[in-house]
Amino acid sequence: MRALAVVFTLCLLAAAPAFAGPRQEANKKTVIAFYEAGINQKDFAKASQYFGPRYTQHNPNAADGPEGFKRFIDFLREKFPQSHSEIKQVFADGDYVILHVHAVREPGTRGNAIVDIFKLERGKIVEHWDVVQPIPEQAANPNGMF
Amino acid sequence: MRALAVVFTLCLLAAAPAFAGPRQEANKKTVIAFYEAGINQKDFAKASQYFGPRYTQHNPNAADGPEGFKRFIDFLREKFPQSHSEIKQVFADGDYVILHVHAVREPGTRGNAIVDIFKLERGKIVEHWDVVQPIPEQAANPNGMF
Repeated sequence: MRALAVVFTLCLLAAAPAFAGPRQEANKKTVIAFYEAGINQKDFAKASQYFGPRYTQHNPNAADGPEGFKRFIDFLREKFPQSHSEIKQVFADGDYVILHVHAVREPGTRGNAIVDIFKLERGKIVEHWDVVQPIPEQAANPNGMF
Repeated sequence: MRALAVVFTLCLLAAAPAFAGPRQEANKKTVIAFYEAGINQKDFAKASQYFGPRYTQHNPNAADGPEGFKRFIDFLREKFPQSHSEIKQVFADGDYVILHVHAVREPGTRGNAIVDIFKLERGKIVEHWDVVQPIPEQAANPNGMF
């Protein structure tokens, strides 16, 4: 039984990094649900359930905190009610979730390529960075931005 | 001994996702070395050792393949020899490595916020996407873009 306990303990230690996997998958689901509720459904109340005790904002056009996000959602609903963001790729590492997104404010326009980076603590969103680039009409390669 | 074998096998299965960790760490090192050699040292020959059998380019301003990357490096060396890119954050998930970068082409200018996404196969870089945004003079929050 002692050998069994030793092997089991060693295995638990070896497996430790594996426990990160389910957390990253849960974080991905949280961020996707937040994005869909906030950016696409433009429902701040629904989106705000995913916020932690803070929401530190690095997008230079948005005010800090959940209130700044609310103002952005209000702006989208008023000015671009048909705007839609399609999540092309989702990545997670540690406490971070990264989205590669095609955001179109008015149907039929080329829209923006965006990468959003979210930090989570205890499964809740607490910080956000992004980089936004308009998709140009012409490109030097045939591969598209996604 | 049979119980020992069962526990050991179960533990190995539980630990399986942990084996992904070292690959992601190796991929991060490869991409950082590639970035430093190519974008900062502007040494195409040194950077090209990290390419796989293809380099599919999604940056709309760059031609496809290693040759397109070479032309970009030549452009940087000629027009912006003092350009420097500081990697602020590095993430990895599956076969992908994501960099959050502050790129300054001329010292003293604000520069660009960039997210680069690299796909690797067998430890070599085979595909690249990015999103680039000039850092504005003023921001709606005090947190900076990084």
